[in-house]
Amino acid sequence: MAEITAQAVKSLRDATGAGMMDAKKALVEADGDAEKAVDILRVKGQAHAAKRGEREATEGVVTSYLHSTGKIGVLVEVDCETDFVARNEDFQEFAREVALHIAAANPWYVSEEDVPEEAKQAELRIFEEQAADKPENVRPKIAEGRLRKWLDEIVLLRQPHVNSDRHEGRTIEVIRTEVAAKTGENVVIRRFARFQVGEE
Amino acid sequence: MAEITAQAVKSLRDATGAGMMDAKKALVEADGDAEKAVDILRVKGQAHAAKRGEREATEGVVTSYLHSTGKIGVLVEVDCETDFVARNEDFQEFAREVALHIAAANPWYVSEEDVPEEAKQAELRIFEEQAADKPENVRPKIAEGRLRKWLDEIVLLRQPHVNSDRHEGRTIEVIRTEVAAKTGENVVIRRFARFQVGEE
Repeated sequence: MAEITAQAVKSLRDATGAGMMDAKKALVEADGDAEKAVDILRVKGQAHAAKRGEREATEGVVTSYLHSTGKIGVLVEVDCETDFVARNEDFQEFAREVALHIAAANPWYVSEEDVPEEAKQAELRIFEEQAADKPENVRPKIAEGRLRKWLDEIVLLRQPHVNSDRHEGRTIEVIRTEVAAKTGENVVIRRFARFQVGEE
Repeated sequence: MAEITAQAVKSLRDATGAGMMDAKKALVEADGDAEKAVDILRVKGQAHAAKRGEREATEGVVTSYLHSTGKIGVLVEVDCETDFVARNEDFQEFAREVALHIAAANPWYVSEEDVPEEAKQAELRIFEEQAADKPENVRPKIAEGRLRKWLDEIVLLRQPHVNSDRHEGRTIEVIRTEVAAKTGENVVIRRFARFQVGEE
């Protein structure tokens, strides 16, 4: 078992933008291998700003939504570049709307990049088997189409906001882009947690 | 007196989430009767991870705590056995107090069992290296002591509640046991998420 030094944790954080805890856990899991740790963070969706080569979004807001039943709760972190925008009402409203949406729509991941490659491949194989009765030359296209549909269902950014009256079928990604344009800053849905009593 | 096998202890621990010593004591007390041992642990409030136990804690509440800065948020699920207790004010108050505590104390895991064995071993190795200048025969004890201290710091149930005026240094586990006794149900802190902008 490799020793995880504070320096190694710091390097990994600088390289990925991950939090201290996440970086340390990833290094432990990778047995000290920095490159492997980056992969682990990537799979977990914790290597955000850096992996997209965007301007760093290190400010932001953490907000929550609790369903009135007390049985479903969501915590979400939405980041931006300055504390000025973090206090902006449009930005905070976006964070609250994302939390509400997550409670209702139950996405599994923030972005497509966060979906583990093995999960994608496993789904693709199932869709290919389901298309086994179709002519061979169209099977890959059918399977690809079904994979895209599956991603539309489980990836937050690809989901149309559940408040369709207000958002008219626009996806979270489209709304995110609008808030980014409005505030003039990079806006990143960094992570979320959704707990529902009784779920496994 | 029935013989208590290591296998029996392991099964009981798997079923209840109890510690090894507690499981063994309960089996001795139950004269090897596994079902009776589960009851004994339950009465003593030591069958905490009842998610794996028989009297399942499948009801409960999801609650959150948001720090006034908007930079720290916590989501926590606390489970019990019936919706009746889930609506109980003492139970809900406990959930809110745990959320507030997590925001301030920043634990990494709910219980010691949640700490990955590799992480424990990695820490132990560091503590052993730090004790290299001590006489060889006392090194393991020093390292073990430091490991326990480290666990006290990162494991939620082992932390004294941050509101020391109100809780007088009692740990979350002690407070949890009290709520379980008060409500007559198994009370389980099932999971939590703590997000902090920038993770500093």
